[in-house]
Formats: sequence, structure tokens, C-alpha cells
Amino acid sequence: MKTIKDNEFIRGNVPMTKEEIRTISLAKLSLNEAETFWDIGSGTGSIAVQAAVSDKSLNIYAIEKNDEGIELIGNNIAKFKADNIKPIKAEAPDYPEDIEVPDAAFVGGSGGRLREIVLDLKKRNPHIRIVINAVTLETVSVIKELLEDDDIKNSEMIQLSVSRVQKIGSHHMLRAETPVYVSLIEYV
Amino acid sequence: MKTIKDNEFIRGNVPMTKEEIRTISLAKLSLNEAETFWDIGSGTGSIAVQAAVSDKSLNIYAIEKNDEGIELIGNNIAKFKADNIKPIKAEAPDYPEDIEVPDAAFVGGSGGRLREIVLDLKKRNPHIRIVINAVTLETVSVIKELLEDDDIKNSEMIQLSVSRVQKIGSHHMLRAETPVYVSLIEYV
Amino acid sequence: MKTIKDNEFIRGNVPMTKEEIRTISLAKLSLNEAETFWDIGSGTGSIAVQAAVSDKSLNIYAIEKNDEGIELIGNNIAKFKADNIKPIKAEAPDYPEDIEVPDAAFVGGSGGRLREIVLDLKKRNPHIRIVINAVTLETVSVIKELLEDDDIKNSEMIQLSVSRVQKIGSHHMLRAETPVYVSLIEYV
Amino acid sequence: MKTIKDNEFIRGNVPMTKEEIRTISLAKLSLNEAETFWDIGSGTGSIAVQAAVSDKSLNIYAIEKNDEGIELIGNNIAKFKADNIKPIKAEAPDYPEDIEVPDAAFVGGSGGRLREIVLDLKKRNPHIRIVINAVTLETVSVIKELLEDDDIKNSEMIQLSVSRVQKIGSHHMLRAETPVYVSLIEYV
Repeated sequence: MKTIKDNEFIRGNVPMTKEEIRTISLAKLSLNEAETFWDIGSGTGSIAVQAAVSDKSLNIYAIEKNDEGIELIGNNIAKFKADNIKPIKAEAPDYPEDIEVPDAAFVGGSGGRLREIVLDLKKRNPHIRIVINAVTLETVSVIKELLEDDDIKNSEMIQLSVSRVQKIGSHHMLRAETPVYVSLIEYV
Repeated sequence: MKTIKDNEFIRGNVPMTKEEIRTISLAKLSLNEAETFWDIGSGTGSIAVQAAVSDKSLNIYAIEKNDEGIELIGNNIAKFKADNIKPIKAEAPDYPEDIEVPDAAFVGGSGGRLREIVLDLKKRNPHIRIVINAVTLETVSVIKELLEDDDIKNSEMIQLSVSRVQKIGSHHMLRAETPVYVSLIEYV
Repeated sequence: MKTIKDNEFIRGNVPMTKEEIRTISLAKLSLNEAETFWDIGSGTGSIAVQAAVSDKSLNIYAIEKNDEGIELIGNNIAKFKADNIKPIKAEAPDYPEDIEVPDAAFVGGSGGRLREIVLDLKKRNPHIRIVINAVTLETVSVIKELLEDDDIKNSEMIQLSVSRVQKIGSHHMLRAETPVYVSLIEYV
Repeated sequence: MKTIKDNEFIRGNVPMTKEEIRTISLAKLSLNEAETFWDIGSGTGSIAVQAAVSDKSLNIYAIEKNDEGIELIGNNIAKFKADNIKPIKAEAPDYPEDIEVPDAAFVGGSGGRLREIVLDLKKRNPHIRIVINAVTLETVSVIKELLEDDDIKNSEMIQLSVSRVQKIGSHHMLRAETPVYVSLIEYV
């Protein structure tokens, strides 16, 4: 896998999944087994782009509701020649009709509609593999409820805390980044 | 114990030990068994003040090399009526001659002279109890070496990570604070 | 404050709040302003005992539903001469009738009845100060809902992670302890 | 990338790099740019095997000093059909003479000889990319010193803490794993 550093992406002011969280989220998605992948709440498109450069044959939709995000996604597709990404301006789970059914989906942002988004994905593909990132207690609560579904054959949830060592003068200091809950749901 | 909140202290731009780190550092110092306590690299004086209001009979020196710190310490002594604190402008371990020997010391800032500071304290009082806070790998390395001393009867080292839940709109989000290594050294 | 080390308590197989979590939980309770304090789901009684030795005049109830816990609490009261603690065998919030109204309460274990317990405490004392420890996502969800109460004048929630440095041969290794969410609720 | 779960490896009693640490360490190695990769202190061979199944054309040496480890590596090579791994019984940095020069190396275990190992790697390939995992303060200190080398063009150090949510009865509880420092050194 070729990892892209955070500062290589064109970012604007849009929040972005940090490198290590991106790496682990993508690894848990097992995209080598997927043909079509959705990046929901794509923001800068960093997850979609990282997936795209790792596998040029993967069919990727980057779904984002904000204009600023859609523009950044376009810029990053151009920068990384990630032609296998189709940007979709839509507020999940209200997608255009002609969008292809995914084998795997990443939910980075849900605008408070996480339950709907996940159940819609399950309806489209009863065997889908979904990774969800959460930084709020509200999202963690919804995920916890979603996990109580007998149709899930495999699930995981971790909390990931990264502290980055920074050189301040001649000293190396730890700086903590926002802890993120990374969850995996695989339906039957 | 009466805990003082971070935002009750007069702070300026001087870095300050955060509430939970302050609470744990002071608890590990067992100041109920001490008569004289030094707060070395006192900054805003927050550790000294918290100790002072918890025990009005404790004899406290707040040692700080910067003028800005000395002024803030004076302001906080006045605000919290912490008359049992004497501010000392000095760069540890170069103290004035008439300073009393401590039973316990907290080292929050060491200006790169931690080894000297600790060995000087041990020389003044071979039974001293010292708590050291470290946020750099360099300080952690020095502490690790200091721990290799047969004159130590008890020592401890923890890394403490606090994430604070903040309300952002209608959501509760975790924000990580800088992780701190808190160490205790008790000599024979 | 005099801190008691974890291994000083008589423990059996009952889970116990760890030293640093105990220290911070008690500090947030501001027991210096309380006359009557309840330790709910007291387990070994470690929170009650630490509070008792810090303030001999505090009136403390250690409430525990299990016989093993009640016995351990009795043993720890005897060991630490903590005569200001009254052990109460009860499953919160079903308390005996003659129990005194608390100014502050700690909830370490709730047997799935946290909401009831907290609302009952609020009814007994509309100005009560409550600290709750949580190690499960379920408890965190309930606390998050309890925080949505306009009668709360002040609240806090932190996640606290302690890693303890252990000497393994000639090396110092970090060992992480279970992260704990510590919450404070103060009603009007 | 195809991720292998921890419990898929044949493990014995040998310590193993955990899934998320393995994923991030390998991502930072950028093995897509390498032809020859060394896994030093290979243990169960989990890093080598994960690299091998991700890139069948990569030339991999799994270097391990213990017989038990060498046997486990052999077993895991067989299980995962990782024929591009050559197990080498050697104590780093005392390697057999005919071993090929690496483009990238992972150091998971160093037996206290980390400085020697890294400087030897740099001598063999002045442009080498090295990722080191550290769980002791001693190893962190050595890495910190190694970072003070003007021949380094790029370096990184993070501390990674993973807490895994486990279902205990009907509750989801966080369990913290040992925090690991993951460092990257790229020479000129």
C-alpha cells in the first residue's frame, strides 16, 4: 500500500480523517475483496483517494453534501490522478438513482442520520462491509445500537488514540490528536 | 480536598498544569506528612496554591525563574489568600541561601537541569519525596536514569491521558489533552 | 489529602476503582463542602474509606448489594479505622427508609439502573453533586442523556487513561489500564 | 491491502505485534517502493507474512534469534503460502554473509542492540527506510538519540493506543492494549 501523507491532500477548511485513522479504516474494509466502494461524507475525499491510488480498478463513489467538499474532492482526484472516483453531491442516504450497489462503505460523516445510512446500505447489499468513524458520544451510541442486529456476522469497535511527537526547540514533545472510535460491521 | 478549577487561576500566557494532573501530582506527594514543600518551576503557582488552600499550615516555596511567572504567582497568592506561599525568583537548583529544607517537592519545569535539581534535593533532604511532571521524551529519559538509584525506596511512573468531552452544537465530542508522565521518587 | 494505595485495601475478587481514578473522582466531589456522602455500588469500600480518612467528620454511607462486598467494606472500615462509614446492604435505588439525605454521591456501580439512581438522588436533594464512573458504552450513553437536563448547573465528563510503567527485567514498560469515563453532575 | 487478523496467525507463546500496529507500521514502510524487506526480531513472522501476502513479488527476510520463533515463522509461511519469505536464524545485527541489502526494514525486537542494528542498516543502505516499534522507555530513549542524525531526511514518531470494545454480558466495555511507539526513519 502506498500511504498518502495528510499534508499532500488539498484540504481547505474541511475536517479530514488523519493518516493513521485512514490507514486502519481502509485496512478494516478489506477493499481487495470489493468492486464498488462508497466513501460517505467524503469531505476532502482523502479516504476515497487513498483507496483509489491503492487499487486503480476499484469503482469508487465519493459522496458529499457540501459544495466546498465537492470542489476539494475534484481537486484531489486531479492531483492524485484518481480517475476511478466519481464525486456525487448528495446528502446520505438520499442518493441519485443510478448509483451502483457497493460491496463496502466508509462512513466518515453522517449529519446525524447514521442509523438511516447504515440500514439503507444493508438494504442495498445484505452482505455489505461498513466501517464507521465516530468522534462524538452520540455517534458511538447509535453504533452500539446498530451492533444489536442478528444479521451481523462480524463486528469490531476500537478507540484509537494517536499522540504525535513534535520537535519543539531541542525537545521532543507528545501532542495528542482527537481520539476516534473505528467500527466495522459485516452483515451476513 | 478543595479542588480549584483551571479557569479560576490568573494565568497570562504561562503554561499551567491541568486540573486532573495537578490533583494526582499533589495526591502522590502526600503533603499531609510534610511541613515544607517546594513547587519548582512554579509557573502560575497553581500547584503551590492548590497545596496552600488544602493545608493552611504548610510552609510553601514557589520557585520560578521568569518575572512574568513571579508576578502571576503573586496575583494568585492574593486571589486565593494563600499567605503560606513564599515566591522565590531563582533558577533551580540555584536557590537563595536562607531557603528552608523541603520534605516534599514538585518539579513542573526544570529548564533542562532536572538531574541537578533532583540530586540537589536529595542532598538537602536524603528522605525527600519528589513528584516530577514530564511532557518531553528528554525529561522521561532523565527520570528513567534517576530511577536507577539504590537510595530510592519507592518510585512510580504513570502516563496520564485526559480527554475532555466538549459540547459542540448538540453533540458531545472528545478532545485529548497533552499526555503527561507523572513520576514519584521517594528516597530512603 | 492522604492517598491510600490500591494494595493497602482488603480486596477479595471484587473490582476496585484504581488509585488515580479514585483520587480524581473524590476531588471532583468537593467533599469539603459536604456533610453526608453516599458511595453507591461501593464494592470494596475504597472510595468511602479514602473519603473517610481524609475527613473524619464526614457522614458516609457505603451502599452495596453483594454480601461479599459488604464483608470487604466491613474489613476495610476496621483496617482503616473509618468509623464514620455506615455500610448499607441495598440495591440502589432501593434504600432503607432511615438513610440520611446526601450532599454528594459517587456512583461506581449501578447494575443497569443508573438513570433511576441519579433521578432518585436529585429528588432527595435537588442541589446534589454526583460523580459517576463508567467503563461501558451503555453507561456512557445513559450519562449523555442525563446531561440533557435543564436543572443541571454544572457538568463535566472526561475520559481518563492511565498507563503504568512497570519494570520488566532491566526495562521499563508501559501497561495500560482500563480507560474510565469520569462524569460530574451538579444540579441547581 | 488484505489484512490478516491476529488470531489467524499460529502464535505459540511468542509476543506478536497487534493488528492495528502491524497495519500502521507496514503503511509507514511504503513497501510498494521496496524490493527487499527485512523483518528484524520477527517473532511469529506476522509482519513479514502480512507484507508477503500484500505483495507476492517482495523479497522478504524474517530474522529471528529464537528457535521457537523460527519454527512459528515456518508454520505461518506454510499457512499463508508466503513463499517470498526466507526465515533467517540470527541475532541482529549479526547476519549471515549472503543476505541481500534491504530497501526497508522493520525492527520489532532488538534485544537491547537497537543502536547497532539501525547503524548497521544505514551502512548497508544509506537510503534505507526503517520502522521501529517500542514498548519500553529504554527503546524510546535510543530512538530519540538516533533521530539526532543529520543524515536523516525524514522522521516520525507516534504513540499509538488502541482500546478494544469487548462485549461482556450485555455490555460493551473498553479494554486498553499496550501503547506502542511507532517510529519511522528515512535516511538521505
